[in-house]
Amino acid sequence: MERTLISKIQQKDGQNVLIKGRILNVRSLGNIIFLVIQDYTGIIQTVFEKNAEVKMGETVAVKGLVKKEPRAKGGYELQGEKLEIISPITEDLPFDLARNELNLNINTLLDQRALSLRHPKVQAIFKLYDILLKSYETVMREENFTEIKTPKILGSATEGGANFFKVKYFEKEATLAQSPQFYKQIMVGVFERVFEIGSAFRAEPHFTTRHVNEYISLDAEMGFIQDYSDVIQMLNKVIKKMFELLEKEGQPYLEMYKIKISEVPEEIPCVKLAEIKKIIKKEYGYAIPEETDIDPKGESLAGKYAKEKFNSDFIFITHYPWSDRPFYTMPSSENSRETYGFDLLFKGLEIATGSQRIHTYKQLMENMRK
Amino acid sequence: MERTLISKIQQKDGQNVLIKGRILNVRSLGNIIFLVIQDYTGIIQTVFEKNAEVKMGETVAVKGLVKKEPRAKGGYELQGEKLEIISPITEDLPFDLARNELNLNINTLLDQRALSLRHPKVQAIFKLYDILLKSYETVMREENFTEIKTPKILGSATEGGANFFKVKYFEKEATLAQSPQFYKQIMVGVFERVFEIGSAFRAEPHFTTRHVNEYISLDAEMGFIQDYSDVIQMLNKVIKKMFELLEKEGQPYLEMYKIKISEVPEEIPCVKLAEIKKIIKKEYGYAIPEETDIDPKGESLAGKYAKEKFNSDFIFITHYPWSDRPFYTMPSSENSRETYGFDLLFKGLEIATGSQRIHTYKQLMENMRK
Repeated sequence: MERTLISKIQQKDGQNVLIKGRILNVRSLGNIIFLVIQDYTGIIQTVFEKNAEVKMGETVAVKGLVKKEPRAKGGYELQGEKLEIISPITEDLPFDLARNELNLNINTLLDQRALSLRHPKVQAIFKLYDILLKSYETVMREENFTEIKTPKILGSATEGGANFFKVKYFEKEATLAQSPQFYKQIMVGVFERVFEIGSAFRAEPHFTTRHVNEYISLDAEMGFIQDYSDVIQMLNKVIKKMFELLEKEGQPYLEMYKIKISEVPEEIPCVKLAEIKKIIKKEYGYAIPEETDIDPKGESLAGKYAKEKFNSDFIFITHYPWSDRPFYTMPSSENSRETYGFDLLFKGLEIATGSQRIHTYKQLMENMRK
Repeated sequence: MERTLISKIQQKDGQNVLIKGRILNVRSLGNIIFLVIQDYTGIIQTVFEKNAEVKMGETVAVKGLVKKEPRAKGGYELQGEKLEIISPITEDLPFDLARNELNLNINTLLDQRALSLRHPKVQAIFKLYDILLKSYETVMREENFTEIKTPKILGSATEGGANFFKVKYFEKEATLAQSPQFYKQIMVGVFERVFEIGSAFRAEPHFTTRHVNEYISLDAEMGFIQDYSDVIQMLNKVIKKMFELLEKEGQPYLEMYKIKISEVPEEIPCVKLAEIKKIIKKEYGYAIPEETDIDPKGESLAGKYAKEKFNSDFIFITHYPWSDRPFYTMPSSENSRETYGFDLLFKGLEIATGSQRIHTYKQLMENMRK
């Protein structure tokens, strides 16, 4: 008998079906056993009117009759007839996956990751991640960007600084890519618009919520811009489309967390860094420390300001100082200590960074010598 | 004036336009200069009836009048009026990008990669690569696979063996992922069907056309199969759809190489490894060395056999020996020295590998101890 996916059960009312999935819950009421079975398309209750030797977490194949049952989730249940255990468990699960909330401490959550990932609310996070990846790919192609994949084992550090990992490369030493930056810039000379979804590595301890050793970076680079505002407009457009797709396709997962996706403005407000510092001082009485361009508290208050002043969860902070930005960043033509580099904040957290790049060899060489 | 993409020029007959691109070729005929300009959408000839100081390889913005010109490629040319050099070159190009064939030796091709990539025939390779990535993402989602991204810095080697790179991970030593294998298997327990497009690293010298240090691996893993033939069927289906999309969207690039995309059979022929060895001996008089499962010459002859016998560019070789396959591979129920592991050959070259995995803890533990 061919397998029926749980999401298709309602089309088989009154028929015998075979389902395959994992036991999410087992309850006994006298001689009756209620099994909650989950496959990747949904959940169904199965009733056995005899003893069924089965435990939570086991993988099973169940044959049974589909019956209307108004009290069941989805309106149907399965009257179980035959149960085969495909993969038995060898010890009891360390926690109850059938609970609405896992409520585990982070050590248990991560130590038992193969199991905690199976909880619907944890699954939801990775489903949203999947949709985000899909939306980025889709949107970038719509905007005529070509997808590239660039090397991750490099001869030297891309972004400078000290936060790179060293790899033993046969008899030599290599470094792991901190970003695809120079490859992207080379590829603009080839395809004008390119994007990459790839691993980036940063040798930074995980001591804040803003640092990770490795992550998937959504990168893009485009040529023939007038100035940095073209890049800002493109990023605005891409983020807007991504959030719209996330809202459309991610609804069941967002609902689990009662999250309403933010509306992305047609034009996200832009404020210069020097200006936002003054505003934060004036409006919220907080002086951003001199030694940083903007600190986490400053970003958070910039997010607050964006919400209060522009009713926007997003804000671009522009014109970062020359001293804090990489050598390929275009200096401002009005103030050489500032650049056409920017960050995008979402609810007070940096989610993207960008800039206009220097596009002539002469200026680039001069800038490298400064 | 807003930029017109070169592919849209024909819609602007008789109008003044602004184009931006790179000078692919410069020819002078007396006082007349012919410039071939390329942007990411196409190529157009521009005629200046005065001296235009411009060199091959420079990035320019050109204003001019669109005119019908039957002798020009595409049927139109631009009568140049104003030329601005956006990014000048500082030395002459080391080779002529306007030639139909680059014909460079591999050292020049790679040493000058930022330039050689701009040749249309090299661009074509990376355009086809882009289409392959897109087709894989698209097809896997159609088949209800969830996209995942798994860690690349690992505590120990995924696939065993000695071909892994070591990373200095703060005070510890880590290894770069040879594959996402165990993560994929964990995620089958979560989403049943998952795929990943990610970096894989193998510490193997590049001494054959079959070895690279790092590559992008198109991975997938699925649950609730009857046996390995379900995996083979899925791979068959995925490859078929990918090749069809490649043919449909890659036509202009394939034509440059006069490549006709192979038809993927509805059912790619499957032959057991032990059997193909006998066939190769009998049909082609070649004895595959005892110490390998199948060597490159054997694969090549297996490809020849597939073409001659089944008129197929593809062939699955199945039932690889237990001794050559990883511990999680399901042994054959008929012959415990064989497994349900297989390779897919395309024109005599391995392009995919797979197997049925062991799905119970007990058998997996027993297999690890063997």
